[in-house]
Amino acid sequence: MSASIQSSGGVITCRAAVAWGPGQPLVLEEVEVAPPKSMEIRVKVVCTSLCRSDVTQWQSQAQPDLFPRIFGHEASGIVEGIGDGVTEFEIGDHVLTVFIGECGRCTHCRSSKSNMCQNLGLERRGLMHSDQMTRFRVKGRPAYHYCAVSSFSEYIVVHSGCAVKINPTVRMDRACLLSCGVAAGIGAAWNVADISKESTVVIFGLGTVGLSVAQAAKIRGASRIIGVDINPEKFEKGKTFGVTEYINPDECREPVQQGWGVTVTLGVPKTKPEVSTHYAFLLTGRTLKGSLFGGWKPKSDLPSLVDKYSNGEIELDEFVTHDIPFERINDAFDLMREGSCLRCVIHMQKEL
Amino acid sequence: MSASIQSSGGVITCRAAVAWGPGQPLVLEEVEVAPPKSMEIRVKVVCTSLCRSDVTQWQSQAQPDLFPRIFGHEASGIVEGIGDGVTEFEIGDHVLTVFIGECGRCTHCRSSKSNMCQNLGLERRGLMHSDQMTRFRVKGRPAYHYCAVSSFSEYIVVHSGCAVKINPTVRMDRACLLSCGVAAGIGAAWNVADISKESTVVIFGLGTVGLSVAQAAKIRGASRIIGVDINPEKFEKGKTFGVTEYINPDECREPVQQGWGVTVTLGVPKTKPEVSTHYAFLLTGRTLKGSLFGGWKPKSDLPSLVDKYSNGEIELDEFVTHDIPFERINDAFDLMREGSCLRCVIHMQKEL
Repeated sequence: MSASIQSSGGVITCRAAVAWGPGQPLVLEEVEVAPPKSMEIRVKVVCTSLCRSDVTQWQSQAQPDLFPRIFGHEASGIVEGIGDGVTEFEIGDHVLTVFIGECGRCTHCRSSKSNMCQNLGLERRGLMHSDQMTRFRVKGRPAYHYCAVSSFSEYIVVHSGCAVKINPTVRMDRACLLSCGVAAGIGAAWNVADISKESTVVIFGLGTVGLSVAQAAKIRGASRIIGVDINPEKFEKGKTFGVTEYINPDECREPVQQGWGVTVTLGVPKTKPEVSTHYAFLLTGRTLKGSLFGGWKPKSDLPSLVDKYSNGEIELDEFVTHDIPFERINDAFDLMREGSCLRCVIHMQKEL
Repeated sequence: MSASIQSSGGVITCRAAVAWGPGQPLVLEEVEVAPPKSMEIRVKVVCTSLCRSDVTQWQSQAQPDLFPRIFGHEASGIVEGIGDGVTEFEIGDHVLTVFIGECGRCTHCRSSKSNMCQNLGLERRGLMHSDQMTRFRVKGRPAYHYCAVSSFSEYIVVHSGCAVKINPTVRMDRACLLSCGVAAGIGAAWNVADISKESTVVIFGLGTVGLSVAQAAKIRGASRIIGVDINPEKFEKGKTFGVTEYINPDECREPVQQGWGVTVTLGVPKTKPEVSTHYAFLLTGRTLKGSLFGGWKPKSDLPSLVDKYSNGEIELDEFVTHDIPFERINDAFDLMREGSCLRCVIHMQKEL
């Protein structure tokens, strides 16, 4: 079974990795992908990397009605079709998809202080922002989206505000990492924590996002970069990205925090969404903040990050521990759950 | 009874307003003030203004053993005696006392990111930092300090790191407000929240600190300054300082928060020292931070604030609702508890 484009303006029949229920292995199915509606584009996915939040959401029992569902949101692709009113893209453009869009018009998009677009924010209902419908059908039923991206499909429809045109000479199988995880970590370090030279930085969790923070902290000239993770193997990999010291919380008997500082939360919590602290911690100079996508505005900021990769200023290749053909996408889920990968890049169209 | 200096290097006998127990009206007593020890100075207090935290701490039942006690920390005075090793001050210098010192040598003092001096921080045990003793005796017993300042006394001993030399041409009966409340509010706005032009600022509590935030926000060009207070009369006064809108939470049935933003906590909580929030509030761009003394390093920063008052760039006079002779200090406590003052300035030496 391979992609068969029936009409560049009509429905496409292609392969997608469909989750039929929470935690159930994905099944490669033939799906129908609708043409893009107004202000949307249809994209041929080239590569999609697996992010921890795809796995968390797939495992979650919280939204059992949103199946069958097509996960995936960290992706690169090529514009295949263009909906009414879209002037920003042309067929053939190389793009990254993004899970938080940038409409460019709302109060948040017009402020330098927020990247929380009010029109194309984090989509949680498995639907498209514009009409609260899906663009996929599988076995005669609608298939739900994830983050309005759903990149575990050979073709996808996204809002034009949720795609970013990038330099076409850049490797698509690496640039996809900037679509979510690596950019989130770098942004948390640069935009949110605003790490300064000779800072001490402590990173809780040395996955792709955490190690992206390490990389960005090193670039800013942090003098100590302390990695905290229950898996000691992460420290070995972490050294590549600038981690200078390692703490295993399972072997730690005393609190390690002292002094002033900024705590930045990022990523999706699995449990305990309540954050609490003693008032005095704030009074004495601590700051608690957070970010989605590292504070980046995707259209405004991602192209320059892609260029930094292209110029060798930031590292992406070292994050890719596995290149996997689309047919073996479940292997990536297994690796992520075992904690034995950083990023698995899934190649949609290519024999590996 | 009036101050009688027995020896410029020896013990001074003078008047102080002594609290003999929590919430008990202050009594003007004859007290003995020891000479300054190494790195300390003795100061003739000129004016001391009453800060809400003096009243809160005086009312508190939490430390019943720390009585008799001399409260007061927001003060101006003139250096009368100098301990060994002090080179920064000369007799006759005009100073402000401060409740957080600046030793200039600790990690915090040497960092641009903290004003939480590790050697001369907020003193909570009613003693002097250096030797954990008191410098006052009343009726043959030691009298405890407050914040290592205790400015409700005609003469006081403070660590040289807890006093700031100021321009001697500036009115001492107004400059004292910069010793705590007004500086704390201005610093919270400028240093901690870093309010930018055309921001919307919401201030909870329109006392001296809150209205200092308003003043500072107005100077930064905030376009909306919303005051929240259960006392509508505060809004009338608030307009003087730049408050543009008023919300009475007692008349408010719906949550008013929306959008991104920075929340800055400042001042001393009376109850509920726990701060809790939902993780998602942080992720979507909210920041929770706090400050003591508005993030100012007293020696480094206060002289320029005093100059700003002197140049008419910041307002102090409008905060002073009452000038009160030392003998009537309990009136100031009554006014503060009734909510019918902003700052009461207590004049130690002068007939009014």
